[in-house]
Amino acid sequence: MPKIRFVIGMDGGGTKTALIAASLGGEILLDHEGGPSNFQIIGTKRAARTLVSLIKKTLETLGEDSSQLGGVVCGLTGAGRDHDKERIREAVLAEAKNRRIAVPDVWIESDARIALEGAFKGAPGIIVIAGTGSIAFGKNEKDEIFRVGGWGRVIGDEGGGFVVGRDALKAVARMLDGRGEKTKLSKLFETEANLKDQQSIISFLYEDGKDPATLAPLVIKAAAGGDEVAQRILTSQAEELAEHVGALVQKMRIPRRIPLAIIGSMGLADHQYGRLVRTKISKRVPSVLVQDQAAPPVYGAVLMALKRLKLQPVS
Amino acid sequence: MPKIRFVIGMDGGGTKTALIAASLGGEILLDHEGGPSNFQIIGTKRAARTLVSLIKKTLETLGEDSSQLGGVVCGLTGAGRDHDKERIREAVLAEAKNRRIAVPDVWIESDARIALEGAFKGAPGIIVIAGTGSIAFGKNEKDEIFRVGGWGRVIGDEGGGFVVGRDALKAVARMLDGRGEKTKLSKLFETEANLKDQQSIISFLYEDGKDPATLAPLVIKAAAGGDEVAQRILTSQAEELAEHVGALVQKMRIPRRIPLAIIGSMGLADHQYGRLVRTKISKRVPSVLVQDQAAPPVYGAVLMALKRLKLQPVS
Repeated sequence: MPKIRFVIGMDGGGTKTALIAASLGGEILLDHEGGPSNFQIIGTKRAARTLVSLIKKTLETLGEDSSQLGGVVCGLTGAGRDHDKERIREAVLAEAKNRRIAVPDVWIESDARIALEGAFKGAPGIIVIAGTGSIAFGKNEKDEIFRVGGWGRVIGDEGGGFVVGRDALKAVARMLDGRGEKTKLSKLFETEANLKDQQSIISFLYEDGKDPATLAPLVIKAAAGGDEVAQRILTSQAEELAEHVGALVQKMRIPRRIPLAIIGSMGLADHQYGRLVRTKISKRVPSVLVQDQAAPPVYGAVLMALKRLKLQPVS
Repeated sequence: MPKIRFVIGMDGGGTKTALIAASLGGEILLDHEGGPSNFQIIGTKRAARTLVSLIKKTLETLGEDSSQLGGVVCGLTGAGRDHDKERIREAVLAEAKNRRIAVPDVWIESDARIALEGAFKGAPGIIVIAGTGSIAFGKNEKDEIFRVGGWGRVIGDEGGGFVVGRDALKAVARMLDGRGEKTKLSKLFETEANLKDQQSIISFLYEDGKDPATLAPLVIKAAAGGDEVAQRILTSQAEELAEHVGALVQKMRIPRRIPLAIIGSMGLADHQYGRLVRTKISKRVPSVLVQDQAAPPVYGAVLMALKRLKLQPVS
């Protein structure tokens, strides 16, 4: 029986899929990128095709046989629930069989789970994901996982781009109705997104199905320009994320300070909102230590694959 | 040329379509009911079929020729915009032609517009519609129409069943996360709607596509049972509706008191929330006089048809 020599980690989302192949010591052998693999949008079959193509390309590039591959961990957007994980796992195995690639174990994880693993290179910590949606995830010394948030856009996703954009549209609607105060967001949305009246806003939301998250950068811009309504939206959403962290730390009962990384487009340190999120979290939850992520989610997937093989990277 | 002897008014929504035929003096000659005609859900073709079938049945029952029919006004859910009105009008005319019924003019209106006309039998007034969604509509002495609200569930619909149910689910999510206070809503949703944890709530909202509005009666029940979170949701939503009315009255610049009717399942006077809405509106906007609607929306459609013929009912 040939000896296992490497593992594969993947991070698949709505725009692309990243892959890293790593040695059993955790050294990166290669990285690839493929198309999207958000199975809830493009379907499990197409997602599986993308994932298996990337595996195949990796084997070819490395010149290795799949019998030397110890395992594959795929962290996928939308793979939070067990039956979804099973569904996509079966699709990947079927697709691999179809293409005559003898893949070993394939494990499906959520994108949040691999991000948590990557952020602290497998060590305990907390991540706050603030992209279009939001969620807070933590892991303690006993490898137990805790979660706060992740309720989706209808009742959750506080602090993410969707809620920021939606609340800004709400403020514009109130102003146009004469129910709410004046905000520069109205002018900004008109010039930058052609949202000038009720008709255009309703078409944007309900007919064209556009994502309010696309407006979040304009809200950040308006806030930087001194618009109070925009500033209030960002402040309240940053506070919501801090509340997530507060509740998470309570659940985790951690004995000492724990590192926290903020991940996702809304958490970037180079804009006012990202800085605000950092400040609010540090202030509300002094037991966390905000820092940058140590490694990207795709490397977290590699670490999880090694762990499954009971191997820890040398690092 | 035969003399025009009657008109038809229709009120079409998601569950049924009501029809009234009335004499030129406004006396009701007959009423019928048919299936749904919400064209944005079942399509314009099927909606048109329902509407034309009802017209045909009316002509047969009355034993009248369509040349005696002076006009048809259809008030339809979702027909707020001009291009939608034109679309459904063309479908009705095509279907009538298909079935060899020479219908005279057909006018499409929104369901809110005919409700406003019915509520005060054509006189000036304000209606607040609080069903699944919400909107406030007013007409002044000059027959000018004003609107506040009607922004749909993503950024509006305050005070309606969807927002009440959604905010209650939000409160349950916060409690389950440890972010929010305790609420009896959690227990109630668990026993009455099988919503016991994040998994079941997320499936309810995003997979099964269930409407949070179905939970609104449980929120009203919890509030009546003394649950503070439920009470706060209802109070804040009733206040939102009062704000709609306040802004509307400002826009209308009405010189004296104006009647106001509350329409829709959430405005019913026989539950705590409906009473709360009445109280909040009366308190915030003393220039309105809350009263019951004088006639149902379908009769409002009849009045609009008569008006188009330059006829006022005797009444």
